[in-house]
Amino acid sequence: MLLDVLRGGRRQPPPVWLMRQAGRYLPEYRALRSKTPDFLSFCYTPQLAVEATLQPVRRFDLDAAILFSDILVVPDAMGQPVSFVEGEGPRLEALADSAAVEALGGLRIDGRLAAVMETVATVRAHLPRETALIGFCGAPWTLATYMVEGGPSRDFAAVKGWAVRDPDGFGVLIDRLVTATVDLLTAQVDAGVDVVQIFDTWAGVLPASGFRRWSIEPTKALIARLRSRHPDIPVIGFPRGAGVNLPEYVRETGVTAVGLDSAVSPAWAARELLGLCAVQGNLDPVTLLAGGAAMEREVASILGALSDGPFVFNLGHGVLPSTPPEHVAALVDRVRRQASAA
Amino acid sequence: MLLDVLRGGRRQPPPVWLMRQAGRYLPEYRALRSKTPDFLSFCYTPQLAVEATLQPVRRFDLDAAILFSDILVVPDAMGQPVSFVEGEGPRLEALADSAAVEALGGLRIDGRLAAVMETVATVRAHLPRETALIGFCGAPWTLATYMVEGGPSRDFAAVKGWAVRDPDGFGVLIDRLVTATVDLLTAQVDAGVDVVQIFDTWAGVLPASGFRRWSIEPTKALIARLRSRHPDIPVIGFPRGAGVNLPEYVRETGVTAVGLDSAVSPAWAARELLGLCAVQGNLDPVTLLAGGAAMEREVASILGALSDGPFVFNLGHGVLPSTPPEHVAALVDRVRRQASAA
Repeated sequence: MLLDVLRGGRRQPPPVWLMRQAGRYLPEYRALRSKTPDFLSFCYTPQLAVEATLQPVRRFDLDAAILFSDILVVPDAMGQPVSFVEGEGPRLEALADSAAVEALGGLRIDGRLAAVMETVATVRAHLPRETALIGFCGAPWTLATYMVEGGPSRDFAAVKGWAVRDPDGFGVLIDRLVTATVDLLTAQVDAGVDVVQIFDTWAGVLPASGFRRWSIEPTKALIARLRSRHPDIPVIGFPRGAGVNLPEYVRETGVTAVGLDSAVSPAWAARELLGLCAVQGNLDPVTLLAGGAAMEREVASILGALSDGPFVFNLGHGVLPSTPPEHVAALVDRVRRQASAA
Repeated sequence: MLLDVLRGGRRQPPPVWLMRQAGRYLPEYRALRSKTPDFLSFCYTPQLAVEATLQPVRRFDLDAAILFSDILVVPDAMGQPVSFVEGEGPRLEALADSAAVEALGGLRIDGRLAAVMETVATVRAHLPRETALIGFCGAPWTLATYMVEGGPSRDFAAVKGWAVRDPDGFGVLIDRLVTATVDLLTAQVDAGVDVVQIFDTWAGVLPASGFRRWSIEPTKALIARLRSRHPDIPVIGFPRGAGVNLPEYVRETGVTAVGLDSAVSPAWAARELLGLCAVQGNLDPVTLLAGGAAMEREVASILGALSDGPFVFNLGHGVLPSTPPEHVAALVDRVRRQASAA
């Protein structure tokens, strides 16, 4: 179903999955996770990651599963160790200069990444054929923000400053990340994922010129190189905060579909994007958290603008940890009722 | 000069001022501030606020001064006290429910706000006639985020959740803030400001439907009521993160000019906005921090797209505290050199 739409098909009701559909808002996830408090160890343990991936699909009958993993397995595997501090997010020893970039290794699919690929293969074997399995990576720019800032940031002054002052030096880091993400996604497809999503979570902090150079160009290179090995793999790009630059992103990168954050007007997206590619999005996670009649209205408004498609229903960002699971069930039910309307 | 452009004139070089042009990046500001560590007390002391307002104009010969104050004087004056914690930003006791909204007072221009108006009058008396004085307020939505979250927020779940679950109750708070900001801006114009800017710093966290209801509609009401008292006052709207919703914001609210954050492509703005109103923006503050050839290139690119105007040069967000003042001098110099090119 998801794959049909990504090939340009129109389906009513549209396929539905949710960013961060596996995770802390599910009691069965919290129970599973309590046995392995360290987050990356959890991601690197196939038995646990397989179960976390399958939990939301089992509970809500979604149209896709997304590999339970983290975008920061890439720096971790390149020799820049990542740890997660409860309530604060990831911590890395920030890359200070070009020498630190030179010291990074390439991405080898062995050890802990081999465990991730085992997770992919096992999930694919357990999923019904009609349920798509989505692999993913962080876009080079978004990975670079964590690697240079050393964690979450308010103003991204370190990474943006480096990119502005020394674009050639910073470009070496980006090039290495293009190669690493090509290798990661290729291995995921080899192991069994049906489609991949590229999360450019921090695309929106770039000025327009930087967006072209550090989001569009590396994503374009990444997709071209992935497709040289897997020509038919559908790619969903999610440049969060790209706003008015979305049409340029879609035209230049070659994505199969574009994910919209919640700030993008569905009517605008129908007008400016549906003619270019499939569109995915974009209910505000806070509206899902609130549930009820307000959620019904918002879902109806998004479906009204976009469900003629090609369209995939999703959120504009990840499920919030305090979301009641019943609200997710009600959301999926509401989207599926679009069938009878069509 | 600024006023000519806001009336639709085209000037090469364009007028230039910078958001947060007064502040910590200036040694003379740090010296002044060291005598009064409490931030709001500083804002409420005319002698100090006048000097802080004038410092950057004196140093850089900018085309406008902006009143040194803070958007949170509004809740402070309505009976929700605001304090500033060094390095953490503002703290308020969060409004929990409609009863807390009912308990808020109206905005009376006496006491500490009378001191703000004294600052306005004194600055206006000291400025050359050709230098515009800009007053400002936070937009109702942005003020509400601080008042409901109790300070800065990552996901804005409390304020957005309230707005989604109980739009009528939340609307009472927004209505009160429209009235309060009308009263504040009216008093600023009475005291001598030549133009006002409405900062909707957190407009971009709203989904499209919420942006219409909580950013566009209150801003439209605010401007209409301000103009019933001061029909000719130019109004600059700055809905940060509004992205693809900018044309709708401009058409609906009646702003004289729109401020662009750095994510908006100048070429897009020239195409979609210049026919509707004057445009202001949008160099990335990190590019100003970096300075040098990279800054020159970015400034040339913005001027190339927009300087046919009506256009006001500015940043896409406030000056960062670590910015070298010489970079600001170089920026103003570069913008002024646009004269000879024209």
